[in-house]
Amino acid sequence: MASGGGVEEVTNKQVLFKEYVSGLPKESNMHVSTSGTIKLKVPEGSNAILVKNLYLSCDPYMRPRMDQPTPGSQSYVDSFKPGSPIVGFGVAKVVDSGNPKFKKGDLVWGKTGWEEYSLITDVQNLLKIKHTDVPLSYYTGILGMPGLTAYSGFYEVCSPKKGEYVFISAASGAVGQLVGQFAKLLGCYVVGSAGSKEKVDLLKNKFKFDEAFNYKEEPDLDAALKRYFPEGIDIYFENVGGKMLDAVLLNMKTHGRIAVCGMISQYNLEKLEGVHNLVHMIYKRVQMKAFVFSDYYHLYPKFMDLVLPHIAEGKIVYLEDIAEGLESGPAALVGLFSGLNVGKQVVLVAQE
Amino acid sequence: MASGGGVEEVTNKQVLFKEYVSGLPKESNMHVSTSGTIKLKVPEGSNAILVKNLYLSCDPYMRPRMDQPTPGSQSYVDSFKPGSPIVGFGVAKVVDSGNPKFKKGDLVWGKTGWEEYSLITDVQNLLKIKHTDVPLSYYTGILGMPGLTAYSGFYEVCSPKKGEYVFISAASGAVGQLVGQFAKLLGCYVVGSAGSKEKVDLLKNKFKFDEAFNYKEEPDLDAALKRYFPEGIDIYFENVGGKMLDAVLLNMKTHGRIAVCGMISQYNLEKLEGVHNLVHMIYKRVQMKAFVFSDYYHLYPKFMDLVLPHIAEGKIVYLEDIAEGLESGPAALVGLFSGLNVGKQVVLVAQE
Repeated sequence: MASGGGVEEVTNKQVLFKEYVSGLPKESNMHVSTSGTIKLKVPEGSNAILVKNLYLSCDPYMRPRMDQPTPGSQSYVDSFKPGSPIVGFGVAKVVDSGNPKFKKGDLVWGKTGWEEYSLITDVQNLLKIKHTDVPLSYYTGILGMPGLTAYSGFYEVCSPKKGEYVFISAASGAVGQLVGQFAKLLGCYVVGSAGSKEKVDLLKNKFKFDEAFNYKEEPDLDAALKRYFPEGIDIYFENVGGKMLDAVLLNMKTHGRIAVCGMISQYNLEKLEGVHNLVHMIYKRVQMKAFVFSDYYHLYPKFMDLVLPHIAEGKIVYLEDIAEGLESGPAALVGLFSGLNVGKQVVLVAQE
Repeated sequence: MASGGGVEEVTNKQVLFKEYVSGLPKESNMHVSTSGTIKLKVPEGSNAILVKNLYLSCDPYMRPRMDQPTPGSQSYVDSFKPGSPIVGFGVAKVVDSGNPKFKKGDLVWGKTGWEEYSLITDVQNLLKIKHTDVPLSYYTGILGMPGLTAYSGFYEVCSPKKGEYVFISAASGAVGQLVGQFAKLLGCYVVGSAGSKEKVDLLKNKFKFDEAFNYKEEPDLDAALKRYFPEGIDIYFENVGGKMLDAVLLNMKTHGRIAVCGMISQYNLEKLEGVHNLVHMIYKRVQMKAFVFSDYYHLYPKFMDLVLPHIAEGKIVYLEDIAEGLESGPAALVGLFSGLNVGKQVVLVAQE
């Protein structure tokens, strides 16, 4: 197609989803294409916006999106479309707008495509970035979906109280590191688990958790939890599922709460692991509640009011793992599922 | 010991707990003893009460009490003591009282022993029976622990709304039959599962469930649930655990709620069954909350206000399975775990 009416058409590098995945995803499940082009203008009469993508977010929930859709099991996420770009959260700059809510030059965060430029037709949950005195990449993490996930999951789902015993799995990840810091600010005792010595050190030294351990070095997770929580766990922030959940269920205190944020250990399994100790929920009257940040968009302003001053004062820190260039996207996303990332995994597509 | 001071001493038949149980309990795990005696007077200076037991309650939670206690796993119920009488809920008449709250002739319900007469020292949760225009045995069921369990579990834990889709397992049991009737009164669509044709017929015809099925005749529980809930389940009242829970997790609607009342399928297993589909909680933001009626004692008056008029008007019915005589206790209790009871299992010890 030739460009007409003075509209600039440019090449648009894309990360395309190639095929449905079973098991651990591989870089080869995606394909970096340089053959596409895009007009830097929204179609006449459309209320879409056209953006230049700056940062893309790699998140665990993207793994279930790679599964072949099964009839009748509508999830809160649809599967990716083979042949189309990966879709996820990102930070972008508006290049052209057919929508009165946005204008050229606006910075936004929300759902976008893994490509240099995206035409976004569903702008409902696209948020304008008002505070730019923080790294823009933060809007893929601490100030974006993972941040609101940590905030709503901890404060709304867990009903935390000062002095309570809090355990967080995948604790150095995009969400976990924040939950732990929120819990510490509230005066909780906080322990995190992670998958390497480097991450354990970060939890203790950078994020100021009370304790942390490497789950890969614990042959008996139940014993490990009993060591750190001799009196039991009030709040478990669940990011991994499987064996860890089974061990946690043996160590919950009466009226304990489990916020189910994710179960990354299960996403790549062809056969899901069995959790055997649910009966212990009864003995301890445990609540287990799964949640999704998007049910809490209304809390975003309140969340920002809390977190921005803490960032400015250095009371909350945030660790990112930034891969440079759209080409590095597949490796960055795949690395998430073997824990290669240290902190929030971001892909830098373009500087502003 | 000879009786002194004119205090009458009588024989006191007892059902003694013989030994810790693994697997399915057997009648031989208990022993009916006729060698004991008891003085029909509370000891001088004690604030205990001495009661004549009339009805004893057989409840699923009594199975975990038969397990050998494991260090560190404090449950909300202690294990029975080998050599001592089984302890459970019952209806009794006060014979003598050292406590100002109770007087001779009072009818009470609460924790008592499996014996003809019991000296009750912990009277804190013993409730005086004020309404006697219903069968006294009802205070082991619809007006006792199972009743308050059904009420608090359904109204408090499930946050039910008119028109919602409700599924109940072990639905003809002491709790299930009531939950279903509460849900029908609220205008919900109610389906129950049970383990025999007789029970399924009761659910449909006596308790007026919309649908019911025999889980033993369903090789594919997921398919069965999809048949009865093509649009999914809003509320699952969980009494059984294991495979049924796994199938339910595949069929919950978004923001569905699971009240975990019991998991009777697991109590007799030496190795607990794995539940594989918890990850679906995330996709549907499901809440799963275990509860115990004793956290809701404060609602008992409100519950009675609701349920008594419904009983009087025949809008709520209650089915009991009454075994006659203390000697029949072991068989009645054991029968619960293979589903021999049809309705609430009670043991009649003595007529008032």
